[in-house]
Formats: sequence, C-alpha cells, structure tokens
Amino acid sequence: MADIGVIGLSTMGGNLALNIERNKFKVAVYNRTYSRTENFMKQNGDKNIVSSEKLEGFVNLLSKPRKIIIMVVAGKPVDSVIEQLLNYLEKGDLIMDCGNSFFEDTERRAIMLEEKGIKFMGVGVSGGEEGALNGPSIMPGGSPEAWNDVKHILELISAKADDGRPCVDYIGPRGAGHYVKSVHNAIEYADMQLIAEAYDILRKVLKLQPQKIAQIFEDWNKGELDSYLIEITSKIFKKIDDKTQKPLVDIVLDKAAQKGTGKWTSQNALNLGAPIPAINSAVVERVISSMKEKRVIASKKLFSGVDEEKAKYSGSPEELIESVRKALYASKINAYAQGMELLLIASEEYKYNLNLGSIASLWRSGCIIRAKFLNLITQAYEEDPKLTNLLLYPYFTNKLKDNLADWRKVIQIAVGLGIPVPAFSSSLAYYDSYRSEFLPANLIQAQRDFFGAHTFKRLDADLNENFHAHWEDK
Amino acid sequence: MADIGVIGLSTMGGNLALNIERNKFKVAVYNRTYSRTENFMKQNGDKNIVSSEKLEGFVNLLSKPRKIIIMVVAGKPVDSVIEQLLNYLEKGDLIMDCGNSFFEDTERRAIMLEEKGIKFMGVGVSGGEEGALNGPSIMPGGSPEAWNDVKHILELISAKADDGRPCVDYIGPRGAGHYVKSVHNAIEYADMQLIAEAYDILRKVLKLQPQKIAQIFEDWNKGELDSYLIEITSKIFKKIDDKTQKPLVDIVLDKAAQKGTGKWTSQNALNLGAPIPAINSAVVERVISSMKEKRVIASKKLFSGVDEEKAKYSGSPEELIESVRKALYASKINAYAQGMELLLIASEEYKYNLNLGSIASLWRSGCIIRAKFLNLITQAYEEDPKLTNLLLYPYFTNKLKDNLADWRKVIQIAVGLGIPVPAFSSSLAYYDSYRSEFLPANLIQAQRDFFGAHTFKRLDADLNENFHAHWEDK
Repeated sequence: MADIGVIGLSTMGGNLALNIERNKFKVAVYNRTYSRTENFMKQNGDKNIVSSEKLEGFVNLLSKPRKIIIMVVAGKPVDSVIEQLLNYLEKGDLIMDCGNSFFEDTERRAIMLEEKGIKFMGVGVSGGEEGALNGPSIMPGGSPEAWNDVKHILELISAKADDGRPCVDYIGPRGAGHYVKSVHNAIEYADMQLIAEAYDILRKVLKLQPQKIAQIFEDWNKGELDSYLIEITSKIFKKIDDKTQKPLVDIVLDKAAQKGTGKWTSQNALNLGAPIPAINSAVVERVISSMKEKRVIASKKLFSGVDEEKAKYSGSPEELIESVRKALYASKINAYAQGMELLLIASEEYKYNLNLGSIASLWRSGCIIRAKFLNLITQAYEEDPKLTNLLLYPYFTNKLKDNLADWRKVIQIAVGLGIPVPAFSSSLAYYDSYRSEFLPANLIQAQRDFFGAHTFKRLDADLNENFHAHWEDK
Repeated sequence: MADIGVIGLSTMGGNLALNIERNKFKVAVYNRTYSRTENFMKQNGDKNIVSSEKLEGFVNLLSKPRKIIIMVVAGKPVDSVIEQLLNYLEKGDLIMDCGNSFFEDTERRAIMLEEKGIKFMGVGVSGGEEGALNGPSIMPGGSPEAWNDVKHILELISAKADDGRPCVDYIGPRGAGHYVKSVHNAIEYADMQLIAEAYDILRKVLKLQPQKIAQIFEDWNKGELDSYLIEITSKIFKKIDDKTQKPLVDIVLDKAAQKGTGKWTSQNALNLGAPIPAINSAVVERVISSMKEKRVIASKKLFSGVDEEKAKYSGSPEELIESVRKALYASKINAYAQGMELLLIASEEYKYNLNLGSIASLWRSGCIIRAKFLNLITQAYEEDPKLTNLLLYPYFTNKLKDNLADWRKVIQIAVGLGIPVPAFSSSLAYYDSYRSEFLPANLIQAQRDFFGAHTFKRLDADLNENFHAHWEDK
C-alpha cells in the first residue's frame, strides 16, 4: 500500500510526488487525463510509485487513514476533485489541497469536510517547479491532528534553512496556510516591483547596459540584499538571446501578467483595514504595464515637464548606484513591515493565532522571497513576539536611519526626471505617515462633519465622545 | 392619493420627502419606528404629506402604478424593506433604492424584482443632508421604462448646473446608478486626501496658521480649483472653537473614518484591472490615520533622516503656495482621469453603456465633488465621446504641461522634509507610468518566466506567441 497519494500530475504535482518518493515514501498518483499518468509512469518506472486510471482504484492503493495531496488549478477543479473523492473516502482520511486556493474557499471546504469527518488541510507551497522537486517552503493550515498525521513527511520534503530547520511549520487552523501563502505572494509582488524600479533608475538615469546591471545585482547579492530574486535578476541581465545575440531582457515585452494572489491580498487588506501600499502599488503597476498600447499612444502626446538640464544627475555613477541600493533596501524593509503587519491584523480577525517568527523562518529557504534578510525578521519576532511593526525592531529602525537620506534622494531624482517609482514612493509615504504624530486627517474629519454631519473627536476630550460643529458659523 | 412614497425618515429620507413636496407633489411617508413618523408629521403638518403607521396603509396611500423611494441603511435593511413591500405591491409598481447600496446588491435585487414584475431602480444620491433638501445630484440606474416613470420628478428635485441643466440623467441598467455613485465617492476620497496633503505642506513647510490657510483656500476657490470641497476647506480653517477660542481644525482628532464606498471601489477596480492609485492611496491613508496610537509611539522611535539644513525650503512663501496649488490641480486631473477610466472599463465589463459626458455633467452641482473643473470634463467627453483617458484631452494635456515642474518640485520638497504625500506622489507615478513607452515590467516578466515558467512575449515577435527561456544558460 502507498503511504500517500498525489492527484494532479502537472509539473508541480509530478515534482512533489517525486520529492516525496525520493524521501523513501511509496506514492500513488492519479490524473484526470490518464495519458498524463501513463507518461509520468513511463518516465519514472524505476521509482516506488504506483498509479491507477480510475479515482476509486487510486484511493484503494492508499494505506488507511489515507493521505491525499491535491495539486490542481485553484477554484472549481478543487471542489470537483473533493466531491468525487468523497465517494470513496472514509472518516479519518486526510485531504491536503496544495494548490494556490483562495483562503476563503479553503475556510468553506474545511467546514464542509469537518462535518463529514474528513480531515482537511489547505497547504501553501512556494518555490516553483524546482522547489516542488528539491524542497519547497510549505505553509500548512488545518487541524493540529491533521498536521500530526503528515508532519514527518512535510518536514522531509521541505527546503532546509541554513541552520538546518525545515521550511515548514504548522501555520494555523482552516484557511491559515493559504492565507499566509497569499501574503507571501503579495510580498513577492512588492519585492519584484521594487527591484524593477531600481533597475529602471539605473538604466534611465545612468544609461547602464544589461551586462553592467547584471554586475551590480551580483554585487548586491553579496550583501544585505542577498536573496533569490536579486540572484535571478543578476542572471536575467546576463542572458543573451539566441536569435538576436542581444541581451534577452531588452527584447521581453514590458507587460506584466498576474495570477491573482497579489490582487486578493490587496482586496483582503482593504477589508481588514491593514495598510499595504507597497503591495497595492505593485499590483497597480502591473495593471498599467499591461496597457502597453495605451502607453505607447500616450508617450507621444503627454509632456514630461522635465527640465533636462536642471534635473540631470551630475554626481558619480558609483554614488548613485549605492544610493539606489540603500533606497531598495529601505523600501524592502517597509514592504515586509506592511506584509507582516497584515498577518498580525489577519491573525486577530480570523483567530489564526499566527506565529510571525515561525512564518518568517520558513520563508528563509525554498520559496521565491527567500533571503538572508528573513533571518533578521525571524530574529525580530523571536526576540519580541509581540512586536507590532517591524519598523520598530531596533536593527531595522537603525538601518532605516542609515538609509533614509539616500532613499529620499533617489526618489527626488526619479521624480525630477519623470521616472515612475510608485513602490519606492508609496513605501516612503507609508514610513513617513507611520512615524507622523499628526497627519492632516483632522481636515478630512472636519470636511466629513461639514458636509455629512459625520461628527469628529477632539484631541482635548474623551475619545468616546462625538462632536458636531456648525462650521459655517463664525 | 399620493404621487410618491418615501420609506425611511432619517434626515436624508425626510429631506428628500420635503424636497419632493416643495416641487408640488403629494408625498406619503413611512418609517419602521412610528414615533419618528409622528415627529416628522408634527414638524411638517402644513405640507402636502400623508403618512401611515403600517406599511400596508402606506402602500394604499399611493396612486398606481406606485412609486416608492427607500432611504434606509445599506445592506440587509434594504432587503428587509423590499421583502415586506412585496406583500402589498402589484405588477408595474416601482421601487427606488436611494441609499448607498453596494452595486452588486442592486444587480441582484434588480434581477429578483424583474422576475416578479416589479420595476426597480438603484439610485445614487449625493449632496448630503443639505443636498437632499435643496437639490442633490442624482444617479438613477434601472430600466429605461422605470426612468420614464420618474424622470419628471427627479429632474425637478435635482440640483441644477450653472447652465440650467438638471443634475440627473439616466445612468444605465441594473446597478449602474449605484456603481457610478460609488466611483463618485471614491473620487471624493482622492480629492479630500489631495487637499489634505496640500494643507499639510502649507502648515509643515511654511508654518502657516489656520487663518492664513483659510485665506489661501479662499483665493484658490476663485480660480480653476473652484469647488465645493475647496470652499468648505476655507470655511473650516476660519472656524474658531467656542470652548478654547482656538481654530477648531487644530483640535479635531486626526483619525479619518470611512463608510466603505472608497474601499469597495478600490476592490472593484482591482477586479476590473483598472488603475486608480490616487483613490487607493486615499483609502490607505485614512487607514494609517486611524492608527493614531501606533503612530504616536512610532513618532518617538523612528528617525526622519531629514537633513534639516539641506532640506529647508528657502524660496519665497508665495512661490511655494502657488506651486502647491499647481501640484494640487495636476494631481486632481490625474485622480479624476483614473476615476473616469475606471467608469469606462466598468461600462464595458458590466455592459452599462455609460455616457461619461452626461455623468460629469450631473456631478457639476448638488454633489460633494461639484466643481468648475467638471465643466471641462463634461466638455472633454462632449467633444470626444470615445476619449480613452482625460489626460489626452488637449486642455488637460497642456494644463499638465504647465503644472508639471511645480508638481515635481512640491513632491521633491515634501519627500526631502519627511512630509507624507501618498496621493500627490501616486498620482505622479500614474502619470509618469501612463506616458512611459517602456516600463521595467520586462524584468518582472523575465523573473516570472525564470522561477515559474510563466512565459513571456517578445517585442520582435507576434504577440500571440509565448516564449520560455532557460535563463541560467549563458
């Protein structure tokens, strides 16, 4: 009998099955279209893997209580597989949805399956195809009992951090795993947009060529920015196109696509009242990038208003490169602070009881946002589990102090030259707002009271009291 | 028999009833809590208004086909009133929901009521209490037949623009009226945030006192910024607090509240793939403002990184005041451009067939965002109904050309001094992105292809073709 089953043999599902088998478990596999199963079995005939053409046969290959991973497209396909499985499962069996499901769907499925006595986990898996095969970062949500059933398997197949800790840990009940995965992806959006803005400044202000930019990112990857995304960025700039013999990055169309997790997170943060402007601006900027045809037309009609002579950067290139690095790091600290603050607020709202230190720890390896930087975030929450905002962790507070002047300067240069830096500047606006004892929201409250009698509170009165003024009277 | 009925005698509902009566219609009123009806009737005993304690009695007071306005709290209360009404209504009767309903609720109710042969309109009403009484801006959505039934009433009770046109027009089918109302409110959020940022710069850079700021806004209200929000802002700064004899605005707590329409619009725009960063940043900034306690703590711990000596503004105050005015106007053009572009995209998606010129026209008076500026927007769409973006209307294109240098300068000053300007800078980032032939999204697509094999398109190939590269190979 097989120890565990995998439904869905796309590259992700297939690689996950191979990863599990490599860790000495017997795996059963099933795919709706049988030819894909046959191909997979042909390629992996030497491995400890069994398969069945029919779902019932697949279920019967599994030792009880059964453990079944679903790795199919998010949405209706997941519901459809679960519905079919219910014909054959018994109480105590466990379903793990390892796809990119929307956490509210996972919440719904968890309740429905609990009523039927079937254990269920919503499991976030990050690391792409390569991670699935060699060790992803894994974010499992569900009941603690279900976690106990599969902990030994997930710890073996997960990535390992430099200190040897497996990049998997119990996240929380119901949809907690998929929720945290979607925030991971949203942080990834912000991180990518920040890197893109750094690149845009380097090429547009200093007119640097890809080979030179590759070198800069390679250097950055040796310091505090050390991360998977910086590493692949450096490699991307080195890649020469076979067809044109030019740098391939220059030939890639500048229309960014998206699959939805960034958008979900922005929408959810609006519901929760959590401010994540760096993530929002990354999502919006992908949208604007996708309007390429409109942009090309507008580029010929709209003025820049840039005084080229006055705005021209006249300092040393090395100095600007270092300032951009510092601006990128400062923005990145703020983007992560927003993402972690969102997790804190969501944990309260959904009663997930999230352990932010453990989450930062399991993002240190295997996943797309893996970075040296996450060691510091892990440390921050280990030192102070009640930390309300990463900005207040002394290491980051002081790091920002060191980087702020360059951060401001780089944004000023970009603004002066007409280079859009939505994520750099929204991150700075977040920082400057967060550290403002007084924001101009007093005026907004006065306006709301003026036109809608929405009332306001007074700085010199009890905060439970509401006031209304007749603003037109002198 | 009464010409029309009003359910819900809050100030808004009561004022709307009085407005209709003043225009020579006989009005029947009903409120769930009868004492409120009694009070209303006592205060308006001399008017052509009738009432009933019971809903059935109220319905029987109306001439057929009946016309009934519902003005109750959005959400379940609206469903509850409709459900009760269905016991007494006949085919051909008309229900108008004039509250701030979420447009998707209106869509659902429209379909449900159509099946029962009851006409239904979702009607956006803007102008606050004063507008409801003396003439609001009205955005009615529903079937053209329903519109014909009440057009004569709504045109009479609506505000009138300077050219005499009533500030009401048929918006479109189903939820179109409530949809447009929520975009109106979202634009209002952006407008208020932009004004708040202008105020923040004036007080923090130039250390101006409220009385002086009042004068500046009064001056601005005589020019191209002429609008209701600028007008009331000027009045707000003049108001002296009875208790302290100090300017009241300085005593109002800087925690902005919100009722949800801005948030809905941000969430909806994410679904539609419409970029509205100025609105998003206004919503986010209200959220950050509401975290007053966290901000007070952070203000004592986080550094500004501002080089006071170097960043200090040394120009003339008059020059900066004029630059801020120009920056505000440029940001405002961009915020409205985003809102109108959202309407264009939504019109396509929901098959609303919106007439943007007509919508801009009926916002010219009565509502909160009423402004001289809306004459120009009306004109833009009347000259070119297919205009894809307001930025491309030559008047605005050239106005931005004139204001861009000041806009950039003001943001640079604020960034240098640590004053948060999220809406100013996100509007500029939108403008600079929209006019960019090349954004750095090529890097984002390369990264996505690198780690997730998401493929990319090439600038030199057919756009229907997808490419995948082995980025690690040299």
